[in-house]
Amino acid sequence: MKKIGLVVKKRPEAERAALEASEWLRKRGIEVIIEQDILAISDLTSPFPNPPSDLSCVISFGGDGTFLGAAHWIEDSRIPILGINMGSLGFLTDVAGERIFSVLADVLSGDFCIEKRMLLSASVIRDGSEVIAQTVLNEVVINKGMLARIAHIRTSIDDLYLTTFKADGLIIATPTGSTAYSLSAGGPIMYPTLQTIIITPICPFTLTNRPLILPDHVVINANVGDKDYGSFLTLDGQVGSEITSEDIVVIQKAPHAIHLIKTRGYNYFEVLKNKLGWSGR
Amino acid sequence: MKKIGLVVKKRPEAERAALEASEWLRKRGIEVIIEQDILAISDLTSPFPNPPSDLSCVISFGGDGTFLGAAHWIEDSRIPILGINMGSLGFLTDVAGERIFSVLADVLSGDFCIEKRMLLSASVIRDGSEVIAQTVLNEVVINKGMLARIAHIRTSIDDLYLTTFKADGLIIATPTGSTAYSLSAGGPIMYPTLQTIIITPICPFTLTNRPLILPDHVVINANVGDKDYGSFLTLDGQVGSEITSEDIVVIQKAPHAIHLIKTRGYNYFEVLKNKLGWSGR
Amino acid sequence: MKKIGLVVKKRPEAERAALEASEWLRKRGIEVIIEQDILAISDLTSPFPNPPSDLSCVISFGGDGTFLGAAHWIEDSRIPILGINMGSLGFLTDVAGERIFSVLADVLSGDFCIEKRMLLSASVIRDGSEVIAQTVLNEVVINKGMLARIAHIRTSIDDLYLTTFKADGLIIATPTGSTAYSLSAGGPIMYPTLQTIIITPICPFTLTNRPLILPDHVVINANVGDKDYGSFLTLDGQVGSEITSEDIVVIQKAPHAIHLIKTRGYNYFEVLKNKLGWSGR
Amino acid sequence: MKKIGLVVKKRPEAERAALEASEWLRKRGIEVIIEQDILAISDLTSPFPNPPSDLSCVISFGGDGTFLGAAHWIEDSRIPILGINMGSLGFLTDVAGERIFSVLADVLSGDFCIEKRMLLSASVIRDGSEVIAQTVLNEVVINKGMLARIAHIRTSIDDLYLTTFKADGLIIATPTGSTAYSLSAGGPIMYPTLQTIIITPICPFTLTNRPLILPDHVVINANVGDKDYGSFLTLDGQVGSEITSEDIVVIQKAPHAIHLIKTRGYNYFEVLKNKLGWSGR
Repeated sequence: MKKIGLVVKKRPEAERAALEASEWLRKRGIEVIIEQDILAISDLTSPFPNPPSDLSCVISFGGDGTFLGAAHWIEDSRIPILGINMGSLGFLTDVAGERIFSVLADVLSGDFCIEKRMLLSASVIRDGSEVIAQTVLNEVVINKGMLARIAHIRTSIDDLYLTTFKADGLIIATPTGSTAYSLSAGGPIMYPTLQTIIITPICPFTLTNRPLILPDHVVINANVGDKDYGSFLTLDGQVGSEITSEDIVVIQKAPHAIHLIKTRGYNYFEVLKNKLGWSGR
Repeated sequence: MKKIGLVVKKRPEAERAALEASEWLRKRGIEVIIEQDILAISDLTSPFPNPPSDLSCVISFGGDGTFLGAAHWIEDSRIPILGINMGSLGFLTDVAGERIFSVLADVLSGDFCIEKRMLLSASVIRDGSEVIAQTVLNEVVINKGMLARIAHIRTSIDDLYLTTFKADGLIIATPTGSTAYSLSAGGPIMYPTLQTIIITPICPFTLTNRPLILPDHVVINANVGDKDYGSFLTLDGQVGSEITSEDIVVIQKAPHAIHLIKTRGYNYFEVLKNKLGWSGR
Repeated sequence: MKKIGLVVKKRPEAERAALEASEWLRKRGIEVIIEQDILAISDLTSPFPNPPSDLSCVISFGGDGTFLGAAHWIEDSRIPILGINMGSLGFLTDVAGERIFSVLADVLSGDFCIEKRMLLSASVIRDGSEVIAQTVLNEVVINKGMLARIAHIRTSIDDLYLTTFKADGLIIATPTGSTAYSLSAGGPIMYPTLQTIIITPICPFTLTNRPLILPDHVVINANVGDKDYGSFLTLDGQVGSEITSEDIVVIQKAPHAIHLIKTRGYNYFEVLKNKLGWSGR
Repeated sequence: MKKIGLVVKKRPEAERAALEASEWLRKRGIEVIIEQDILAISDLTSPFPNPPSDLSCVISFGGDGTFLGAAHWIEDSRIPILGINMGSLGFLTDVAGERIFSVLADVLSGDFCIEKRMLLSASVIRDGSEVIAQTVLNEVVINKGMLARIAHIRTSIDDLYLTTFKADGLIIATPTGSTAYSLSAGGPIMYPTLQTIIITPICPFTLTNRPLILPDHVVINANVGDKDYGSFLTLDGQVGSEITSEDIVVIQKAPHAIHLIKTRGYNYFEVLKNKLGWSGR
């Protein structure tokens, strides 16, 4: 560990914690660079800045949103990433702020595991060219346009026609994303290191359109046939591009995984129970 | 029955059926006036035209959407209304096109019942003035703006704070509307003549935010606190107005009901089973 | 208030609280009689004992189960009833144990409201005779026999055939019962003073068999056609009688309501939010 | 293909079809042996008979129940198996009865694929000994006893405590079983060749106890702590053994898979859409 990047949410407590961490790290001879919350300063059309290629790891200070921004920053670089939560525990930011220095010590001494999580790559094909191409950690969402009553989303799996979902939209999520938006739309909880893709329709007109879990090797093509109202593509919660009735959205497993740093005491089931309040009703 | 209004969907088969019906009626001495699909030619800012005050009844030719337009046309006039479906059976248009002449004969001879269904009135209060006021038969929907990740909808019942729903949106539906959008969002089926109001959150972040059924005498106030992205109000599926973080949406039972014409052989449970495919899985 | 009956759960803290309450009441000239948890000492075949006809009110010490026992004890006597919870807050026992003396003072001085809740009457007709007849506050459950794969429950509403539910069972609940078993099976939350009946199928084979809410004037007939495995009738959580394929279960609104004592500070929405954890996910 | 076993449902149309198939096969020099529906004649305590070790394949005539019986008959022998449905299409019996001779011709000429599906092995440990050990294709179900109000099922994953489900029961299913009972209890649809295990609680008291999908390498331990009412273990829909509060149910992936014969024209998504009626609501 020679050089560490910090991605910081624009909130006083996150900035303060990042500053303290950076002092602590510099005292121990680590070079530190600080980025403001990447997701907040970027959008889908302007590409993320590239991180220095010699970063040993990245630490995000904030919530799951800040973590997602940091994940997009490092993209396919395989730089390990750690999430410190500044507030309530998150599925991605499972290290509590008060444990920061003991966790940093563990990281510096190599006392951690790497947990690889699969990513999805989403691209939009318009007139034969790829006009959007991005990697997501949680989910791709295709949503009806604001003025449409319902979207008709024609969906194929490996060029085999599946169905045309009549729904508010469609969530295509990773196992990591199963506890985010997909859960609110009725999807199951998936152990985060699984190699599967979930399709969760949002408020489907056909009540038997239940969430569908597919192997990680499939290629999903989706097309919204609505000429009048358009539709929207949202990648990891960052609302994005309007897409047209001619566009094909192509979703498949990304070739690379993201490398999460998991320090001692990490237990996915504890995070799950805590976030979902499994002790109560 | 002296004068009948026909509301007709802009589709050849609906127009043909309406023309045949109008000839049939005129031969029997009934005055007939024809309106194109009201919903299609109107929007929330330009008020619906008033129907002639001496209409004996209104018949809609089309689907449930055309019926909703006809219902908005007659508003609080208590003119009875009948729905002929041109295509597949609807919850509101439960008379099949092929039965039209026998049903018209029943209507002319007074051989029918009136089924009263409750309506909701929705108004938007901005800076102390009512800027939108409309009646709905199915539902009021408050939706997050296209760029927002989630809406925070502060909701009170009779001035008692209920909760702040973190969700894609909120559906406030009548029993008639329970089998429309609310059903897709996880709401129950309500017998259509009940006097109750249902609140169904759309993809709520808090998984225990289950649909909530309230007495018909409550006044529901809802406010979306999002200053940055705004939100949208949709009335009976007609997407409408953007609303701001200062607006209060007030929803309560309308003072008048809508009077549906139900002819012999009508059986709500048969419509339900047919629409939901209760014979299969 | 001259004579008060206490129904007490067989647990040290409930018995202690009941003893203290009884001393406190006797000092104020109130006659007190104490019953052990009625539900625990009774079953469907031996009828509940009758309460003295001159009771001014009944107070239950325990959880919702003890309260249900007390409710069955007073049956159709219209004696008001109050629930003190000894442990965690319940939907029926919404008065916390530590507030007991201030609440008792309110009750003695008449400073309370009566909230009437509808009850269901359930009876089983076998060979033309009524072999079971009981009133429930929460729900009637018809369950498949232990050895059956699925139950086929033929259901009619007012002698109109509804459908034959293929399911683990069927819950027919009051609005009060909507937050008990029915909620776990996918039913909505119903404001407790509504006058409606909910039918919630348990794990239905047909996925569109969603919960169905009916007016309070209907008579529901249910028959389980399984000759081989029988089925079970459970009334307010008290597992009961085996029923045969010839039996007809008849469920309708009971002629009388139960009179709940609600003291100052009671707010149904607060109980709801507390029980369902609406502050968190 | 020299010797084929037929497993036949005890229904005239299944028996007739099996007889015709057996004549057709014998004419082509194939030895045929016929078994009555295995599931119907067996139970958990008396072990299934062993199939002859030289069977080339097994064909079931009936519904999914008969197919499950045939699957249990061949156990871990890797004999390929084909399901002919006699009635409506099933998830396991996806070959329609009228296509039987063209399908048999394809099978004899080797024109088919083998689709491997994972199995679960379930065992019950009592006082340190394994008292039940069986393999399932669909699911293991742990159910509350008939007199219990709710089961408390203590569940561990790889010796890590997960939670104690308070529910009617727990379904532990394979991807193949995801469209059987688990779907009725709220589980997702899983592509059948996935290597995952799903835990679906039945009517959980804690509403956030959503279905949970786990990797195929986990070992699940479940224990029902109810001393008074016992609980039941059901394996692939065959209701079975009462289990006690001391018993540990151990569930894990079976070491061998089942080999399904899939002939030309097979398309899982078509079966899915047909069974779930995805063309309608």
